Amino acid sequence: MDQVEFLNGKTRVFGIVGDPIEQVRSPEMITWEMQQRGMNAVLVPLHVRAADFDDVMPSLIRLHNLDGLVFTIPFKAKALAYAKSLGPQATQVGAINALARHPHGHWVGEIFDGLGCVEGFRRRGLALRGQRVMLIGLGGAGAAIAVAVAGEAPALLHMFDLNPERCERMAAVVRRISPDTQIVTSPPDLQGIDVLMNASPVGMLDDARLPLAVTSLPPEMRVFDAIVKPEQTPLLALAEACGCTVVRGREMMRGQIAKMVDYFKHPVG
Amino acid sequence: MDQVEFLNGKTRVFGIVGDPIEQVRSPEMITWEMQQRGMNAVLVPLHVRAADFDDVMPSLIRLHNLDGLVFTIPFKAKALAYAKSLGPQATQVGAINALARHPHGHWVGEIFDGLGCVEGFRRRGLALRGQRVMLIGLGGAGAAIAVAVAGEAPALLHMFDLNPERCERMAAVVRRISPDTQIVTSPPDLQGIDVLMNASPVGMLDDARLPLAVTSLPPEMRVFDAIVKPEQTPLLALAEACGCTVVRGREMMRGQIAKMVDYFKHPVG
Repeated sequence: MDQVEFLNGKTRVFGIVGDPIEQVRSPEMITWEMQQRGMNAVLVPLHVRAADFDDVMPSLIRLHNLDGLVFTIPFKAKALAYAKSLGPQATQVGAINALARHPHGHWVGEIFDGLGCVEGFRRRGLALRGQRVMLIGLGGAGAAIAVAVAGEAPALLHMFDLNPERCERMAAVVRRISPDTQIVTSPPDLQGIDVLMNASPVGMLDDARLPLAVTSLPPEMRVFDAIVKPEQTPLLALAEACGCTVVRGREMMRGQIAKMVDYFKHPVG
Repeated sequence: MDQVEFLNGKTRVFGIVGDPIEQVRSPEMITWEMQQRGMNAVLVPLHVRAADFDDVMPSLIRLHNLDGLVFTIPFKAKALAYAKSLGPQATQVGAINALARHPHGHWVGEIFDGLGCVEGFRRRGLALRGQRVMLIGLGGAGAAIAVAVAGEAPALLHMFDLNPERCERMAAVVRRISPDTQIVTSPPDLQGIDVLMNASPVGMLDDARLPLAVTSLPPEMRVFDAIVKPEQTPLLALAEACGCTVVRGREMMRGQIAKMVDYFKHPVG
């Protein structure tokens, strides 16, 4: 037929905005998810130079068949300004990583790192409700994970970040979301912990360090690492060697993509 | 693998800009052509509202991985302003239907309707050089066809449009391109004509009229109609009934796509 099957004049367009852009995985993964669900839609890379962002964004969101944008480095903080309203996760986290065109025409924002992590656990049949969770790292992804995990009402959420202000801020947020969850913000301590989560950058790429000082982990512990590259982080390698159940960054990414596409189909806000 | 094969972070993005946009065929056809040639590229529909065009265009062409734009109704005339220089066809026609990012970073413009028509003839092995050609309609596509046909050095080019200024203007252009071509601009007359071309809208969609008053055509005549919908126009139906060789609008469209992708790979200007 001399034509591709995945594009036509009615295709709804989505984009991932970043600088640089070549490393992103959303185009192939989110487009796959959307097409699996029968949406006539693609998500393309949009390389916006950091200095151009505020000039380009107002025009981009006027493209009438553009229905959503995902944001990556360095735009996660700046993108917030283009949302007219925020979804429940973004409201608590104070940041977004996606904008969607609401059926009423305005743009709404939400953040999916945390929802993706919880979805990754859910898909593996691993409950967070009533569990004792230790979370290390409260940067962009970590804060979102704290909010989403709080939404699952764990028995205890022990959060640690080298920046004490982040700990204080997230303790207040978690308390608001899940008043019955016991909150701890001291340095890591695995005594009584059921689920260990790393959302710090320690262990990324060629970093051979562990995010906390341990030499072994109890085999009944579930261990999650938000890092996607490498797939096998030092923490996950140790956890597997100790017989723990591990949940990988890629599972969070898949969970995030599923939740993001839900949102693109039915934007809330 | 849970991912599509036709998109990733390195994909170069092209767009077709129009209002409305749903009827365009370029996304599936041009993307197919680009992928056939091994380009990691897609062409997506970009619905820019007519009133937004001049606000949105400067931002659009700042997207760093956007390498080309095709223009359809109502933007063919306005798009010219965004080209820093014009290719040879556009220079003569005074209009563009594509912008490409030159390797030096600036945007260059060219028009492909005429080149597509000539390419359609070439692919069918039908010469225009030395032929006696009658062309009806000198609007956007017609003017571009006149320029491209003139470049083939026909023996005669008889052009007709209801607007006499268009006839005068194109006569001067054709004279400049092909000084040895005999030029006629009177109402249609098929006496001695080898090739009849319709670039007027007469016969489009449900229009059952012929673009000129004839009841039969000589079987040795080659008859072309630029209209894409319907595929079988009243003129082509008559031509086929008379035993003529016909060249369809779709063949021009395929020729145009091939020439456009050549240009996107190696922009001139």
